[in-house]
Amino acid sequence: MPDGMGCSVNKPKPVTDARALVDSSTRILLTSHRKPDGDALGCMAALDAALRRQGKDVQLLLLSPIPSWYAFLFDRLPPILGEGMTVDQLTAGGYDLVVIVDTNSRNQLKDLAGWLDKAHVPVLVIDHHATSDHLGRVEITDTTAAAAGVLVHELIQSAGWSVTPDMATALFVAVATDTGWFRFSNTDVRVLRIAAQLIDAGADPAAVYARLYQNFTSERFALMTTMLDHMSLHFDGRYAAQYLTAEDFRRTGAAYSDTEDLISECQRIGSVQVAAIFVEQQDGRIRCSLRSNGAVNVRGIAEQFGGGGHTNAAGTFLPAPVDHAMSLIQDQIASRLPDVP
Amino acid sequence: MPDGMGCSVNKPKPVTDARALVDSSTRILLTSHRKPDGDALGCMAALDAALRRQGKDVQLLLLSPIPSWYAFLFDRLPPILGEGMTVDQLTAGGYDLVVIVDTNSRNQLKDLAGWLDKAHVPVLVIDHHATSDHLGRVEITDTTAAAAGVLVHELIQSAGWSVTPDMATALFVAVATDTGWFRFSNTDVRVLRIAAQLIDAGADPAAVYARLYQNFTSERFALMTTMLDHMSLHFDGRYAAQYLTAEDFRRTGAAYSDTEDLISECQRIGSVQVAAIFVEQQDGRIRCSLRSNGAVNVRGIAEQFGGGGHTNAAGTFLPAPVDHAMSLIQDQIASRLPDVP
Repeated sequence: MPDGMGCSVNKPKPVTDARALVDSSTRILLTSHRKPDGDALGCMAALDAALRRQGKDVQLLLLSPIPSWYAFLFDRLPPILGEGMTVDQLTAGGYDLVVIVDTNSRNQLKDLAGWLDKAHVPVLVIDHHATSDHLGRVEITDTTAAAAGVLVHELIQSAGWSVTPDMATALFVAVATDTGWFRFSNTDVRVLRIAAQLIDAGADPAAVYARLYQNFTSERFALMTTMLDHMSLHFDGRYAAQYLTAEDFRRTGAAYSDTEDLISECQRIGSVQVAAIFVEQQDGRIRCSLRSNGAVNVRGIAEQFGGGGHTNAAGTFLPAPVDHAMSLIQDQIASRLPDVP
Repeated sequence: MPDGMGCSVNKPKPVTDARALVDSSTRILLTSHRKPDGDALGCMAALDAALRRQGKDVQLLLLSPIPSWYAFLFDRLPPILGEGMTVDQLTAGGYDLVVIVDTNSRNQLKDLAGWLDKAHVPVLVIDHHATSDHLGRVEITDTTAAAAGVLVHELIQSAGWSVTPDMATALFVAVATDTGWFRFSNTDVRVLRIAAQLIDAGADPAAVYARLYQNFTSERFALMTTMLDHMSLHFDGRYAAQYLTAEDFRRTGAAYSDTEDLISECQRIGSVQVAAIFVEQQDGRIRCSLRSNGAVNVRGIAEQFGGGGHTNAAGTFLPAPVDHAMSLIQDQIASRLPDVP
């Protein structure tokens, strides 16, 4: 999809088709993948506002709880399927369109996937991931887009809908978080141009940054400090291993969700190519998360133990105790790290 | 200066005058302020390449050493006035133009200021700071620009000079560092549009980010961990105090320069409005650095003890021991923190 699509007279067919689907709908169910991230939630919040402004009756739906720092995107938190909303309630909802953003995978949709099979409601998918189960009657998909927020913004531009400051903020959250605040390799001309347009439309980068990244509780900060105290470097500093015990959570008062993103702190060390964190769960199992800068395929390691993920970010559960779990992974790292000349 | 100036037929007069100064020059001395940062050094590297490509004989000059993570911007490190180059050598250099980027303040130029008074060489200033000693015969100044790199890029565009990938990388460093990697409140439409153009011209954001921010030695990381272990929160978490002793440097093997930027780690805690770090120097004095999110004017505190700086970032030396220095500052914070209702 070319940059500056909004100015084009000949719109790509999926965008035209998407617009027609929206125009012919009245009651829209709008959702995204389980474990929603900033891109998923930013797209949901922005599209919700855009569709309401077109006179649509929109029902937002989450498939699992959202991290607290994204709550500001919503006037009130959307219901969660299986917690605040049942599949029966979906059926009774009378929706004539389902919009799914940031995923096209059945296994990301939990119970919603089965409901979609039976409900025979047209589905619009807006997604930038490679995995596709072709869930949509119309699909705006583009794996070169840095975020689903890029595609939502382009759709909104193409449709000629205005972007309010709240919508701009939500889309800024979407594109900023999926690019690691413009530092990942997907940070391209297209996403920076959209970020600029969103500032023009009222997004405040400094305020968004503070909301997303300067929101630690003192308990979470103490947990991070504990994790850093427990870091050890191996193989000429190329592998960083960290751990947190159940006692560490009790002592610091931090929650298990507070570990989010902490694993990557050690990637600031120039030599680190692979990072792992081992978190002792309340049920005694060890949750292991892995990150890589590309030197090692960490999904391959996670799959050895029944886990999975991406080449650069993966996870699995391991048997206790922590020491044992750490030695299992270290052996895998040893056999996979490229030889240093 | 309007966005998209490069396309304008009517260029602002300083840009036209700057171009004329450059065109009529042969040997150019190119420098910036002491304690050069990413904006100063990125501008110097980019302008050096641009001017050489116009056939100019360019001499880069530093006024103090550069942080190691910026060294990649230069094929070889420029000489430092008073270390690798003398004022007499400047006089013998036969320069017919001096270009100064990212400052217009005499007291930022050390011995160069006195030389400029006597040398009677025309000066071109490119700067975005409010303080101005009117050092330039021609001055491209704009306090609304997020970085001097914005103005250098606009000059290069306006002149019709091409931007090589190395120049794009150098200017990306300039604009990215002066906006705190696009998170400070100066992150505006104009700087993001230029960042996009620089990616188009060959800058690689992920590679630049790794160079600048993922370059910690294990010793520096250990120093940071020690600092975080020594953090204490006061006044309902609004003030974070941290310290490092001379023994901490010995134990971790870190250098004193490794403290750069570490003070702001604690600003990730949502409640923190003011942060301080107290570093025991090798001569026994205590160096105190202060940061504020705006709630408290930390320059006012630093000035109480003979130091100075900005409203949001200041520093001073204090008498030993660390505990005493910390209590002096904490008393100041207590009297200046706004009352919580």
